Amino acid sequence: MYIVYAKENNIYKKDCKENTYHLVRLLERLKEFQAKNPSEELCIQFEEGEYHFYPDFAKEKTLYISNHDEDTLKRCAFYLEGFRNLHIKGLDSHFIFHTELIPFYVNESEHITIESVTMDYAVPSYSEATVVETGINRMVIHMDTLKYPIEIQNGEALFPRENGTHSLIWWLEMDKERLAPAYDIKDMVFGFEEKKERPSIWTDLGNGYYEITLTKKGDCFPENSKASNRLILRHHLRTHPAIYITDSANIMLKDVVLYHAVGMGVIAERSFDITLEKVEVKIHPQKQRIFTTTADATHFVLCGGKIYLKECLFENQLDDPINVHGIYTRIEKIESDSKILVQLVHNQHKGVCFGKKGQTVQCVRQDTMIGYHKTTIQSITPLNKDFIQIEFMEPCKEMQVGDAVENLFYVPNVHIEHCVFQNNRARGALLTSAGEVLVENNIFRTAGAAILIEGDARSWFESGATKHIVIRNNRFENCSYVTDWGEAPIQVSPSVLKAEGKVRYHKHIIIEQNQFECFDERLLYAKHVEKLEWKENIVIHSKMFPPLGKEKFLLDEVVEFILQ
Amino acid sequence: MYIVYAKENNIYKKDCKENTYHLVRLLERLKEFQAKNPSEELCIQFEEGEYHFYPDFAKEKTLYISNHDEDTLKRCAFYLEGFRNLHIKGLDSHFIFHTELIPFYVNESEHITIESVTMDYAVPSYSEATVVETGINRMVIHMDTLKYPIEIQNGEALFPRENGTHSLIWWLEMDKERLAPAYDIKDMVFGFEEKKERPSIWTDLGNGYYEITLTKKGDCFPENSKASNRLILRHHLRTHPAIYITDSANIMLKDVVLYHAVGMGVIAERSFDITLEKVEVKIHPQKQRIFTTTADATHFVLCGGKIYLKECLFENQLDDPINVHGIYTRIEKIESDSKILVQLVHNQHKGVCFGKKGQTVQCVRQDTMIGYHKTTIQSITPLNKDFIQIEFMEPCKEMQVGDAVENLFYVPNVHIEHCVFQNNRARGALLTSAGEVLVENNIFRTAGAAILIEGDARSWFESGATKHIVIRNNRFENCSYVTDWGEAPIQVSPSVLKAEGKVRYHKHIIIEQNQFECFDERLLYAKHVEKLEWKENIVIHSKMFPPLGKEKFLLDEVVEFILQ
Repeated sequence: MYIVYAKENNIYKKDCKENTYHLVRLLERLKEFQAKNPSEELCIQFEEGEYHFYPDFAKEKTLYISNHDEDTLKRCAFYLEGFRNLHIKGLDSHFIFHTELIPFYVNESEHITIESVTMDYAVPSYSEATVVETGINRMVIHMDTLKYPIEIQNGEALFPRENGTHSLIWWLEMDKERLAPAYDIKDMVFGFEEKKERPSIWTDLGNGYYEITLTKKGDCFPENSKASNRLILRHHLRTHPAIYITDSANIMLKDVVLYHAVGMGVIAERSFDITLEKVEVKIHPQKQRIFTTTADATHFVLCGGKIYLKECLFENQLDDPINVHGIYTRIEKIESDSKILVQLVHNQHKGVCFGKKGQTVQCVRQDTMIGYHKTTIQSITPLNKDFIQIEFMEPCKEMQVGDAVENLFYVPNVHIEHCVFQNNRARGALLTSAGEVLVENNIFRTAGAAILIEGDARSWFESGATKHIVIRNNRFENCSYVTDWGEAPIQVSPSVLKAEGKVRYHKHIIIEQNQFECFDERLLYAKHVEKLEWKENIVIHSKMFPPLGKEKFLLDEVVEFILQ
Repeated sequence: MYIVYAKENNIYKKDCKENTYHLVRLLERLKEFQAKNPSEELCIQFEEGEYHFYPDFAKEKTLYISNHDEDTLKRCAFYLEGFRNLHIKGLDSHFIFHTELIPFYVNESEHITIESVTMDYAVPSYSEATVVETGINRMVIHMDTLKYPIEIQNGEALFPRENGTHSLIWWLEMDKERLAPAYDIKDMVFGFEEKKERPSIWTDLGNGYYEITLTKKGDCFPENSKASNRLILRHHLRTHPAIYITDSANIMLKDVVLYHAVGMGVIAERSFDITLEKVEVKIHPQKQRIFTTTADATHFVLCGGKIYLKECLFENQLDDPINVHGIYTRIEKIESDSKILVQLVHNQHKGVCFGKKGQTVQCVRQDTMIGYHKTTIQSITPLNKDFIQIEFMEPCKEMQVGDAVENLFYVPNVHIEHCVFQNNRARGALLTSAGEVLVENNIFRTAGAAILIEGDARSWFESGATKHIVIRNNRFENCSYVTDWGEAPIQVSPSVLKAEGKVRYHKHIIIEQNQFECFDERLLYAKHVEKLEWKENIVIHSKMFPPLGKEKFLLDEVVEFILQ
C-alpha cells in the first residue's frame, strides 16, 4: 500500500481555507499516480487533530441527490471520482466543514474505505431553543443567541449563518429528559421560502426570549407542546449529505462519526456492496446539540449487492435511520409499444439517474402495483430532471398512462445487526427491497414505527415489492409514540389500491424471537402480504407513555398469517 | 433548403404544454437528418399565429450565463445544440413563453438564423404600479391587482406568479409622459431574498392602493419621486435571457421582436459574427407595459468576428442596450512561473468559460491595467465556478497576486448603425473591444451616458482596452439625465489607478459629425485615452431638464485632445 500523509501535502490540522485547495491538488496527483500504477492501493493518512475544510476551493458539480431538496451546484471536499483502492484513514482525526459543503462525494469508484474520522460543521444549519411558555396560539421560547443568532425583521425570524440568512421552515419539540421527540408531537410547519403556510409574528422580549403568535384564525400550536421541551428549528433545506456515493462498488465506512450534516448522513445511489461498521450518527459529547444529521442517517436508492450495517448507532437525526428502496417512475406518454416518456414524480427524485441501457425494468399497474411486463432498456435519455425517454427491447401493448416503471437491476440484500436506532424524528428501518433482508440483534427506540415496509407509487414513489424479510432477535423499546410517524412498532403498508387473487405486493415476512417493550397493545400493522409469520416474540408492558391504540395486530389483505 | 412545417410536426398555434415536447422531438429528428445530410440547409417554418411554450417538457442544462444572476438548471424551448445551417422562420408568428424558460439557446452551432417572430411571456416577471402620493418615508401607490397580483403578509409585499411567489427587490420610477426613467431618479433597492437592505411596511388600503412606509431611521424615498410616475417593481432575479448564444458562429437575428425576457434580450459568449438586423426590444403595442426585457437588450462577452447591429430599436429594457466586453480574471495563487489559479470575481461572471487551450491571454497590472505578458494557454481547468487553474506555454516571473488576466483571442469588430436606443434604465452603448468599433447614424435617447467606454478590473471586471473607436453622425437627444448612470453623454472611464508615461488604457477615440441636443453643458467625460478627437459635432441647447453639470469637456489623463 502506498501511503501519503496529509500533513506532507499541506493539509494541516488548522482552521484555514487552504486545506481544501491542497486536498484537491493531492487528489489530482493521486489520480495521475493511479493511472500509472493501477494495481497499487492508496492510503491518505491523517494524523490526530482538527482539520477544517471550506467550500471556496472545492470542486463542484450539479448533483441530483435523491431524497434531498435541491438540484444545484454542490461543492464537495473529498471529491472522489474514478478512484480504485483508496483508503482515507484518520487517527482520532476530526474534520470540521464550513457552510455548504458535501464532505465526501464518491462517484464511479471502487474499493473505497473511509475510516476513523469524525465529521461536524463549524456552524450547524439548524438552531435550538427551549419552550418557556405554551398557549393555544402563543408561545414563548428562549434561545442562546450567541450560539444561534437570530434577527427579527417585521415580525419574522431570520437566522444569519455562514451560508446566508434563512427563514424558519419548521420546528420540532424534543423532550428534555429523554432527548427524543416529545410524546405524540407534531412537526410545526411554518413555510418554505417566501410563501408562509403558517403566518406568525415574532416579538423580541429581550435576553434571548421570543414570543411567537400564530396569526391565522383557528391556528394553534401542537396539543402536546410543553414548557421545558427543547426545540429544533429548521431554517435550511436538506441540501448537503455528509457522504454521497453514486455508481460505485465496495464501499466501506468504518469507525466514522457524524455529528451533523445539512442533509443525510450517508446516501448511496446505484452502488453495490456497501458496509457500514461502527458508523455513528450521534450527539456531540461536548456540544450536546439535540439534533445530529438533518435527514436520514443512511439511505440507499437503487442499490445492489449487499448493504451491511454492523454495530452502528444512529440517534437524533431528523429522519429515518435507514431507508432502502428503488424508484417508481410514472408513465406520462406512450409513444409506441416500446417507447415511453416517464416522470420522476416525487420532488426529491428529480434528476436522479433511474437506469442504464441493458438493465431490466418492469411495468407495474397503478392500482394493484403488480408487475405485468419485464423488459430490457434499449435506450434511456433524460429530457430534463422531471422526464425520461425510455425505449424497451421488448414491446408491450398493455401499458397505460399512470402506470409505474421500476428498475429490477438494483436489488440489494440487506443485513442489519447489532445496531442501535434511537431518539430520531420519524421512523426506524424502512426496508423495501426484493433481496434477502435480515434485521437481527438490534435495539429500536424510535418515535415512529421501528420497521416500516412500504412501496408506494402514488406519493413517495419508493419501490419495491419485497420477497423475504426476517426480523429476528431485536429489542423494540417503546416505539411508535408519535402518531404521525407510524401505526405500530412494525408496519407494512404499501399504497396498493386493490388486491387480486392470492397475489400480494409483499411476499414473506418473518418476525421472530424479538422482544417488544410496549406502552400499549399495538405490535403489528400489516397490509398486502402473502405470508406473514409472528413467532416466539416476547411482549413486555411498560407505562412509558399514555396508550395510542388498542389493536395488537391490525391486518388487511394478508393471505396467510402464522402466529406462534 | 429542406423545409419542415411546425404544424406538420404537432406544434400548433395554441396554448398547450405539448408544443415544447413536439419541438424537442422535431429537433431530435432534424439532428438525425443533419447527421445524414450534412450539407443540407434546414428551415423550420411557423405559420401566422400565437404559439405557447411551457417549460415542462423542455430540455435543460446547468448554464452559467454571463452577467445574469443564477447558475442553476435552465430549461430552454428552442434548444439548438450542434446544429448547422438552421433557419427558424416565422410569418407573423408570436411565441408566448411560460414561467422560467429560455426561449432560444444556441450552443456550438453555426449559420443559425431566427427570423420574423415576436416573443413575449404569458405572465411578466416584474410588476407595475402608479405613484399616488409621495412623502419622505411614506408613499402611496396604486396597482392593477388583476394584472399584477400582490399579497401583503406581515407588512411584506409578495408577488405570486406562474413561477412561484417572490418578494420585492427594487423599484424604479418612470415618467408617465415620456415613458422613460424619471428625471435624476434613483433605483430604490429594498433587498435580495431574505435579507432586507431597506425594511418597509406595506399596508393594503383597499381597491389596489398600498401604503409603503420605510422603517429604518433616516431612510427616505428618492428626492425626485413624484405622484403620477409609473413604477416598475422588480421581484425576480435576472435569470432567463430570451436568446442565449454560446460557442457559435454566424448567427443572424432578423425581424425579431422581444417584448419581455426575465433577463437580457440577446446574450452571446465566445461566439463569432453575430448580426442583428431589425431586432426590436420594445413596448408591446397592446399590453403597453412600461418595461421590456429586465436587463440589457444585447450583451456580447468574449466574442469575436463582427458584431453588427443594423436598424434595431431597443427601448425600455432595464439595463443597457448593448454591452461588448471581455472578462478580467484575477490572479489568486501563483503555483509556478507558468501555473496560476485565477478567480472569476464578479458575481455575474461565475462559471463562465474564460478561455480554451491554445488561445492567447495577457497578464495585466492591477494599478496601471497595462498588459505585461502575452502567452498561450497550455491547459485550463475550472476548479469550480469561482476559480480556474491555468497553465501558460511561456513562463513569466513578474506575475503578482491581484493582477488580472484577459483573453486576447476574442476581439470583435463592432458596427452599430441606424439604431434607436431610448428610454431604458441605465446607459446606452457600452463598448470595450480592441477591435474596430464604428457607431454611426444612430439615435440615442438614454437616461445615462449614451456611450460608455470603460474597462474595469476592480468592480465589474469587464475587459478590455480599446484601440480605435469612431462615433460618427449620431444624434444624442437629451442624454445623461440620471446622475447615477453617467457623467455626460459620452463617457470614457476605465478604472485605472495610475498612468505611466504616454501609454494609456484606451488608444484612439474619434467623435465626429454628431448632433448633441443637450439640456446642460456636459458633452464628454474622458479619462486615460492616448488620442481623443472631437470634430465637427453640432450642439443644440434644449430646456428638457434642469441642468446637472457645467463642464463641456471633463478630461483627465488624456495625452492628446484634438478639438475641431
